[in-house]
Amino acid sequence: MEDKETGRLEAFSDGVFAVAITLLVLNFQAPTIPSSLTDRALLDALSRQWPMIFAFVTSFATIGIMWINHHRLFNHIKHTDTGLLLLNLLLLLLIVFVPYPTALLAQQYAAHPGEHYAAVLFNGTYFFMALCFNLLWRYASYHNRLLGKNVDQHAVAAISRQYLFGPISYIITLGLTLISVPASLILNLILALFFAVPARQPRKALQIDTQEPRELTSNDS
Amino acid sequence: MEDKETGRLEAFSDGVFAVAITLLVLNFQAPTIPSSLTDRALLDALSRQWPMIFAFVTSFATIGIMWINHHRLFNHIKHTDTGLLLLNLLLLLLIVFVPYPTALLAQQYAAHPGEHYAAVLFNGTYFFMALCFNLLWRYASYHNRLLGKNVDQHAVAAISRQYLFGPISYIITLGLTLISVPASLILNLILALFFAVPARQPRKALQIDTQEPRELTSNDS
Amino acid sequence: MEDKETGRLEAFSDGVFAVAITLLVLNFQAPTIPSSLTDRALLDALSRQWPMIFAFVTSFATIGIMWINHHRLFNHIKHTDTGLLLLNLLLLLLIVFVPYPTALLAQQYAAHPGEHYAAVLFNGTYFFMALCFNLLWRYASYHNRLLGKNVDQHAVAAISRQYLFGPISYIITLGLTLISVPASLILNLILALFFAVPARQPRKALQIDTQEPRELTSNDS
Amino acid sequence: MEDKETGRLEAFSDGVFAVAITLLVLNFQAPTIPSSLTDRALLDALSRQWPMIFAFVTSFATIGIMWINHHRLFNHIKHTDTGLLLLNLLLLLLIVFVPYPTALLAQQYAAHPGEHYAAVLFNGTYFFMALCFNLLWRYASYHNRLLGKNVDQHAVAAISRQYLFGPISYIITLGLTLISVPASLILNLILALFFAVPARQPRKALQIDTQEPRELTSNDS
Repeated sequence: MEDKETGRLEAFSDGVFAVAITLLVLNFQAPTIPSSLTDRALLDALSRQWPMIFAFVTSFATIGIMWINHHRLFNHIKHTDTGLLLLNLLLLLLIVFVPYPTALLAQQYAAHPGEHYAAVLFNGTYFFMALCFNLLWRYASYHNRLLGKNVDQHAVAAISRQYLFGPISYIITLGLTLISVPASLILNLILALFFAVPARQPRKALQIDTQEPRELTSNDS
Repeated sequence: MEDKETGRLEAFSDGVFAVAITLLVLNFQAPTIPSSLTDRALLDALSRQWPMIFAFVTSFATIGIMWINHHRLFNHIKHTDTGLLLLNLLLLLLIVFVPYPTALLAQQYAAHPGEHYAAVLFNGTYFFMALCFNLLWRYASYHNRLLGKNVDQHAVAAISRQYLFGPISYIITLGLTLISVPASLILNLILALFFAVPARQPRKALQIDTQEPRELTSNDS
Repeated sequence: MEDKETGRLEAFSDGVFAVAITLLVLNFQAPTIPSSLTDRALLDALSRQWPMIFAFVTSFATIGIMWINHHRLFNHIKHTDTGLLLLNLLLLLLIVFVPYPTALLAQQYAAHPGEHYAAVLFNGTYFFMALCFNLLWRYASYHNRLLGKNVDQHAVAAISRQYLFGPISYIITLGLTLISVPASLILNLILALFFAVPARQPRKALQIDTQEPRELTSNDS
Repeated sequence: MEDKETGRLEAFSDGVFAVAITLLVLNFQAPTIPSSLTDRALLDALSRQWPMIFAFVTSFATIGIMWINHHRLFNHIKHTDTGLLLLNLLLLLLIVFVPYPTALLAQQYAAHPGEHYAAVLFNGTYFFMALCFNLLWRYASYHNRLLGKNVDQHAVAAISRQYLFGPISYIITLGLTLISVPASLILNLILALFFAVPARQPRKALQIDTQEPRELTSNDS
């Protein structure tokens, strides 16, 4: 069996994703109503917390889908070098940063729905994240530099095609921000769902997001 | 040996469970008594903190038992696909959310023991969690879709039976909330203990919660 | 090779230990001196933070040494069952709780060095932790219930002897608290160092804290 | 294959690194402007947050590069003993501490660019970290005590040479602090980049930072 060198890189990244996604709950705080927390007052207080809940769910879905994508890339990447370690750190930096523009957008949109800059920062972060995923993948897959020996070339090409779509779409989202903030957020959400689904391949579409393609591992041990 | 594809999914989930269970301690804060923290004043201050301590222990036990159940399911689930990754994310979302209704309930029950809505949110979260565990398990075990080849069919059937019991019981708990909040909390606690114990099986009752049934692994390596 | 079933239990526990030990840094906050943070004012502010720094280092050493002990026990424990999972959860509950009595003691001792209750809570937590380590170890090692087949009986006996010492010593520490708080804290520190060192054995003293005794693994693969 | 005993030590350390690097984001808080969070006010508020963002990126890069170095050392270290566990805990203590002097420096430098003590604490922490990395490496590599049997002696010597450079350079940085704080920070940054790059070796420069040298693992399984 070919040696997999990326074990600790994946363990460290999993840790960062897990902590980042769980820290989101720290934004939640029980509404503080000094004296009379009756059922009616509680409902009122909770209903005023909906932007917080919406921001929580959005960030959770985003970081979760980013983890699924990281997981998919490292099904194919089997080796590491300093370049990959540094690009992975850059990607994690952006992922850890996500809750900040999310909170800023939730806060500003509630107060000033007509203003644009918070949404620019939000969609801009996604643009850089898409760019960074492309950099990492292209660095690793260039001439199969860090991929496994028996890597499925169709799967690799399918990922490259899907990822190319990323930065272009987020540039469009950024442009849309200046016209309509809600429209840009809806497009952003559609793009997230697009990246939750694995890249389409002519064959073997079911196996692309598994830890290891089954055919290859059957000759192991 | 059959390949286990769920390694990173389990590592990521373990991370989320570990962070969520440890973050509970952030709710703890040393009581701040400005000038005279004598022994008597300390005892008074600590005794007023009991709802906080009760909420901490309850949430810790809940997340811990959820982890034990997650661990048990993935003794049988050996493969992953996009559907499983997304259902697992949904389950983690609910687990990360648990401390919020717990804190809300502790706070409201101390102030207004006669009000019901915080307990409805609390028991409701458990209902959705039970539903989500069922969805994940049925998705994975449907026609053995993602289970191991040599999976113990008795163990699978026993888990399916035990889990079916979950949403039904939590619906009853929810109904009970409207009659008596303390009674609903006691029933909730009994249900948690029920899910801490592995599903009963005709044979091999001792082995169900092990990482891997022993008979199967003995032919390895 | 004998199957090791405790993989996920160890991964989850490692996660809890890692998060608990890192969360300690959240107690640190840069001293807030409104206007004139000159070098002299900074030194003054930092020197007033020494109890915080002492509490941080103590808790860090404690949780770290507890992790080393957990690691040692699971070199010998190879199987899991529901009882072990629950005892392990109880142990993690106490470990996650450690920063709370530590902070309370640091705060009260700075204000009222003559008072005893915070030190009773602090040393009492250690007594329960020692009790819990004993319970977990005796549960697992009783008639070799959950230990590996080829386990080193000398090492097992040495750990049982060393751990027996724990609850007895912490009872003495608790008694000492009522006479002199500083003396009880010094004894507590000496006990922590005692448990950092592996249990003495007639032979093979160097190998006891390794992941796997070397003789056994040489016949693997 | 030679047994690797450091699995849990690496998993625990990865957890601590992952939590420490992600907790940095807790320093980020959306600027709170009570009523008029218009685009112009938001830009003003964000531009006043640059020291926070600079401190975040610096700490993230520092902890990330420390993780890369830890990862590299444990490519060669295959065994553990109590000494290594304790030295590793000491190293983790310093890593978990990093955000504190970083925040202190960012705060003081913004208010009093002419003062030196916060920068002394900052650069001093790095000096102790470099010392600690040296201690851990020399303890493990002394007469190949804890290294793998087939360890690449050239790689070991290259790391020893590069690490020797550490404490000496940070002493110079500390001295420079008293002359010019900005100059010392720039030198500190250059040193961090120097340690991001693997130690130079006569041959096989590409493989030094991989999980396992490829030649050695090819004879496995």
